Amino acid sequence: MVSVVNITMLKKFVQLLVLNLTLTEVVLSGNVLIWPSDGSHWLNIKIIVEELIQRNHSVTVLVSPKSLFINSSSDFSVKFEEIPVSYKKSNIDSIIEHIIRLWKNHRPTPFTIWTFYKELGKLLDSIFQVNTQICDGVFNNPSLMARLQKGGFDVLVADPVLVCGELVALKLGIPFIYTLRFSPAWTVERNCGKIPAPMSYVPAALSELTDQMTFGERVKNAISYSLQDYIFQSYWKEWNSYHSEVLGRPTTLCETMGKAEIWLIRTYWDFEFPRPYLPNFEFVGGLHCKPAKPLPKEMEDFVQSSGEDGIVVFSLGSMVKNLTEEKANFIASALAQLPQKVVWRYKGKKPATLGANTRIFDWLPQNDLLGHPKTKAFVTHGGTNGIYEAIYHGIPMVGIPIFGDQPDNIVHMKAKGAAVEVKFNTMTSADLLSALRTVIYQPSYKENAMRLSRIHHDQPVKPLDRAVFWIEFVMRHKGAKHLRPASHDLTWFQYHSLDVIGFLLACVATVIFMVTKCCLFSCQKIGKTGKKKKRE
Amino acid sequence: MVSVVNITMLKKFVQLLVLNLTLTEVVLSGNVLIWPSDGSHWLNIKIIVEELIQRNHSVTVLVSPKSLFINSSSDFSVKFEEIPVSYKKSNIDSIIEHIIRLWKNHRPTPFTIWTFYKELGKLLDSIFQVNTQICDGVFNNPSLMARLQKGGFDVLVADPVLVCGELVALKLGIPFIYTLRFSPAWTVERNCGKIPAPMSYVPAALSELTDQMTFGERVKNAISYSLQDYIFQSYWKEWNSYHSEVLGRPTTLCETMGKAEIWLIRTYWDFEFPRPYLPNFEFVGGLHCKPAKPLPKEMEDFVQSSGEDGIVVFSLGSMVKNLTEEKANFIASALAQLPQKVVWRYKGKKPATLGANTRIFDWLPQNDLLGHPKTKAFVTHGGTNGIYEAIYHGIPMVGIPIFGDQPDNIVHMKAKGAAVEVKFNTMTSADLLSALRTVIYQPSYKENAMRLSRIHHDQPVKPLDRAVFWIEFVMRHKGAKHLRPASHDLTWFQYHSLDVIGFLLACVATVIFMVTKCCLFSCQKIGKTGKKKKRE
Repeated sequence: MVSVVNITMLKKFVQLLVLNLTLTEVVLSGNVLIWPSDGSHWLNIKIIVEELIQRNHSVTVLVSPKSLFINSSSDFSVKFEEIPVSYKKSNIDSIIEHIIRLWKNHRPTPFTIWTFYKELGKLLDSIFQVNTQICDGVFNNPSLMARLQKGGFDVLVADPVLVCGELVALKLGIPFIYTLRFSPAWTVERNCGKIPAPMSYVPAALSELTDQMTFGERVKNAISYSLQDYIFQSYWKEWNSYHSEVLGRPTTLCETMGKAEIWLIRTYWDFEFPRPYLPNFEFVGGLHCKPAKPLPKEMEDFVQSSGEDGIVVFSLGSMVKNLTEEKANFIASALAQLPQKVVWRYKGKKPATLGANTRIFDWLPQNDLLGHPKTKAFVTHGGTNGIYEAIYHGIPMVGIPIFGDQPDNIVHMKAKGAAVEVKFNTMTSADLLSALRTVIYQPSYKENAMRLSRIHHDQPVKPLDRAVFWIEFVMRHKGAKHLRPASHDLTWFQYHSLDVIGFLLACVATVIFMVTKCCLFSCQKIGKTGKKKKRE
Repeated sequence: MVSVVNITMLKKFVQLLVLNLTLTEVVLSGNVLIWPSDGSHWLNIKIIVEELIQRNHSVTVLVSPKSLFINSSSDFSVKFEEIPVSYKKSNIDSIIEHIIRLWKNHRPTPFTIWTFYKELGKLLDSIFQVNTQICDGVFNNPSLMARLQKGGFDVLVADPVLVCGELVALKLGIPFIYTLRFSPAWTVERNCGKIPAPMSYVPAALSELTDQMTFGERVKNAISYSLQDYIFQSYWKEWNSYHSEVLGRPTTLCETMGKAEIWLIRTYWDFEFPRPYLPNFEFVGGLHCKPAKPLPKEMEDFVQSSGEDGIVVFSLGSMVKNLTEEKANFIASALAQLPQKVVWRYKGKKPATLGANTRIFDWLPQNDLLGHPKTKAFVTHGGTNGIYEAIYHGIPMVGIPIFGDQPDNIVHMKAKGAAVEVKFNTMTSADLLSALRTVIYQPSYKENAMRLSRIHHDQPVKPLDRAVFWIEFVMRHKGAKHLRPASHDLTWFQYHSLDVIGFLLACVATVIFMVTKCCLFSCQKIGKTGKKKKRE
């Protein structure tokens, strides 16, 4: 039976890894250009940037001065190239508010799916306005373009949520890599990356469905895919013109995006439902996760004071700055009824119902708290980064999703038995309290969270190392063409073999027609001969 | 720009790998049961067995005394369990002859595709007779079954080419892993493993097509898939009954095979055309490859005597024991015209036309020869193992494929620009000589072989380590259910969403019908009112 082995085995394994390293080509010192992104998207790319620098690569980040998260005066040794833009930070804030409003008013239930996707289309329009300013800030800026041309970059890394990274790479004549959490209904991954997504068991991103669907859910899934494709095709039209103009030849956004050498997807099979993918897709979810560091003295004392009951970590992320007084009181009174101590990230006014067991902080060392042995549960808005920290440390979750992929993320964690959901719009104190008691006291939630954690930790290579490996691979080999499927060269009807099926059906129809004609002709002949014979 | 870095970077990388190891669970000492296979299939599994033993696992191999390749008195420390069978070695030889005859007479050109697949069906029948004897030898053998039950195995590893490994695993209540090169038209991988294979750019295995197909080739591909599915469905019927009987409940071969935790596919993207796959498929092609060892003294002297011209390695594999005198003379006279020295693996009578530059051997240290710096080209029958040794060492090839996947393999290497094909049935001295001159003197062949070699060596983890990692993973976690797609729980029409599409079409039709009816009704109403008004 299975048993843990001695240190000799461990050494053997390390030897094998070292042998592998010597057999493969040596790590390189390359020159990486980063196309900007913002919010949690940037937090994730930042980890890759830091790792690239650790490994002796030179990294240059393109950045607009209106970026919310990229701090060009930060201390890590990155070069920054500023993109001049005329929009204001308030434009970005209003887009974020628009996103939150969209989910608040039109969460995609079976009855609101049409209005949800229609509103999503409008949102994409306002994003387009800001995004094109960033693109113009590069392409209409000869001195910046000249500096980039002289930069001698080996590869560009971009999150396709902010379009134009692919255009910059093509203009510079260098390969590019995408890092991506998702696009709605996998529109970009499917249409541009050519990843297959059978709608019978691959739920459309944002549909809040799982891989186990009833007939009705499969109908909803099919509609999600179709509506999203329709909206994206309309949205793409503007980008198709933009890309054709910049490249000086007729092209489409999707064709250009499809030239990505590698797609680094920010999930893994601890979170994702198993689905088909392609060799140039690498699932590197949780690449930002790391072991917990010690907490600040004051916080550690508070955590230790929880005794056997342990603590609950509460954070609705960096995008939700405030709550209504009513909602804050709901939450505080629920938390006050727990025997656990609670650390709550909250910037608003201190709620009147705040219990003695709850302490409010402007900011939390979230990963260190989730990795603390006293932590029993995590109340989260369901952002991918936070969920991955919970998976990494094996902490069960209460999800209060607000917008974007958050509802979908919580559906994933619920399906895997590691979370309970509370609806943000309709929640009461009792709902939150009951959800917290469930994940803390029903052992299955902890067990499932630990199972996901074991899956996460038990990979041949860590996600961050895999992400950096493929960036380095593309630099070493000037691309990864050997992973690119031939489907990129097919039209949609060729891809679905409609011409072949049509031809084969026509052949069958011709054969049936000929055989029927022959039979009829023979019958007539026999009939005539018979009549002749009768006459004779 | 890209530059090679110093030893500090190397150390950093090793540190990272070690850190990764300590974060993941420690390697285990488990108990592995191997379901037998034969020929080159066994040669590949043997490498995994040796590695498992190296890593302190206990390995037991089930073996029939009539096995051609498994030598139960071999020196590596494996336990063997004998399966009693009544067939003779000559039965196996006649199956091999049948396979060779099938390809010789019915190689699947567009005009012989139907007869090829019909003959393949007959061949599958004779394999079924032998295969069921092996299965009966286990299931009708209570003492062997009792020993296996007491064996405390953690996992079973099988090549599905020999059926029943999956049944043994289910009877023992342990997870199982497949290691597989291919099934014709990916029938098993598609139907039982649920891997998608869009026929527009994924050529059916054995079709001798590439991923770049003309319209005619795509029609041939569609026919290859359909015919193979039809033949396999017929072949499966017998196995469905067998499996239902052994398990004591109605089941099918495919349902049972579909329970494999991991599918270790014996190719990689250096050889394979990029195609969709699933997270429980791992491409571990070339896992048997290793650096060359020094040659025996006499052989090394001969190789060194070739000077600048270098040598050619010639082998048609272990299955082809003899050639006609005419063919052997053709070959020998072609080789005699080369400035290179030639080492030829050949067991037949010495050909009259043998040149002074050619030396015949009963057996060759093929990998050591291919890894020799003097080697310029490899003449091969195109077995996967040999091709992978050539890829590993970056040697261009002349392929003389004979049967099985060999013609397909050579098509892959031709498409990647690393090989030239010579037809076994029709080849002349001139053909072989011209092919050899092409791969030796046209630099693109060596460059492409080197490119494939670089791709092969530049993976995050070596193929053998990945194969063993997943075997160990399944032992540690008692399976890999998190990688299993939900498509296994769907019927074929659910999988293809035919019910959903039908329902949506019915909805659209109903709406069109209702709208038309309403319009007609309104028109009639307006018409009537108009007439009334006219009358008034």
